[in-house]
Amino acid sequence: MKKRAVVVLSGGLDSTTCMGVAKDQGYELWPMTFSYGQRHDREVEQARKIADYFQVNTHRIVNLDFFKQLGGSALTDQQLDVPQNEENPGIPITYVPARNMIFLALASAYAEVIGASAVFTGVSSVDYSGYPDCRPEFIESMAKTVNLATRAGVTEHKISIETPLMHLTKAETIRLGTRLHVPYERTTSCYNGGDKACGTCDSCRLRIKGFQEAGLVDPIDYAIPIDWSRA
Amino acid sequence: MKKRAVVVLSGGLDSTTCMGVAKDQGYELWPMTFSYGQRHDREVEQARKIADYFQVNTHRIVNLDFFKQLGGSALTDQQLDVPQNEENPGIPITYVPARNMIFLALASAYAEVIGASAVFTGVSSVDYSGYPDCRPEFIESMAKTVNLATRAGVTEHKISIETPLMHLTKAETIRLGTRLHVPYERTTSCYNGGDKACGTCDSCRLRIKGFQEAGLVDPIDYAIPIDWSRA
Repeated sequence: MKKRAVVVLSGGLDSTTCMGVAKDQGYELWPMTFSYGQRHDREVEQARKIADYFQVNTHRIVNLDFFKQLGGSALTDQQLDVPQNEENPGIPITYVPARNMIFLALASAYAEVIGASAVFTGVSSVDYSGYPDCRPEFIESMAKTVNLATRAGVTEHKISIETPLMHLTKAETIRLGTRLHVPYERTTSCYNGGDKACGTCDSCRLRIKGFQEAGLVDPIDYAIPIDWSRA
Repeated sequence: MKKRAVVVLSGGLDSTTCMGVAKDQGYELWPMTFSYGQRHDREVEQARKIADYFQVNTHRIVNLDFFKQLGGSALTDQQLDVPQNEENPGIPITYVPARNMIFLALASAYAEVIGASAVFTGVSSVDYSGYPDCRPEFIESMAKTVNLATRAGVTEHKISIETPLMHLTKAETIRLGTRLHVPYERTTSCYNGGDKACGTCDSCRLRIKGFQEAGLVDPIDYAIPIDWSRA
């Protein structure tokens, strides 16, 4: 049997790059997408298109409505505004409490069920250092916990947590993905989730800067003119 | 402000004992119940009654439908029979993949949102040693992971995972809870979830044996006669 990987697929640029990396490493792709009360369903829609591109057998979409009930984040709480051009240091308001821990716990449970030996996640400690659960020390501790929590803990079967983008800048990620023919035209990053990316939210700005630094033109449409001459 | 504890409350005997222990330790109780495609809703119903007994301010009930999709367990998969008198060693078929890891990840996220300093869970390594995520080494690793995953990881606020029943037998748990006036009459343990406990499933048998060894009579009703003379 071909070795299997669960890939946490958000529909964004990083997780889609992970699909390319896992495929390149010879894994059969088992993407898992979490729908968790985002302001929009665009991410899930794009994730479907990305899964199609990679011709996966099964794309598991898991509804996590309860994130709305937990509160504490601008991405899931309708009462809070998404920050524009946030310059605050520390933990961003877009932080969902322990989101990666929850995603990785669920993805690992799924990995156990389907016999996957790896869980891929597109976290990076470089561009998102404000999120506690994107740090290497968290991932290392989580991997240990996963193997204690599952049958892996009492059998030979181990589950690794793969974070190929951990130490890459956004530009390096984009160069890597481009080399692997990752379909960036199917990805979405904008917090506002319109037909065209707004180009002004924190996430758009980070993405645009990444393509500019990589010397590449982003294939998605923006609602405002972007200066790609720097590309 | 009174210190707060999230208590993972299943409606069973162990988690209800944890409510008593947390209260006894001076915590304000914030119970959290997971509804995850059990064959019955009785556990959730009993959890409500237990929360009422303790006069909590908020009882968070979280719907985890996706457990059904993950599969791999007799407790959530309608295709599998609940085992009767299972004598098999190893991991029981009633194991839900990484269930405690998922519960503790969610309870810790909730703890962060409400500013709780502890998460109580009724796991025991004595009577349930077949479940990998009931072992002390799992809990220790999980606690470390939680504090790396949350704001706790970058601020002074820490979240502890409290497992007061970890090294207790069922009989010792029942004696402890009885001393703390835990309302065992409101709890449910039977896998079959009828109005009366079946008295024959693994969970009923463990409970009955616990009361017998504790020298106490179980206040709930059973569908078959139980010999309490040993109590």
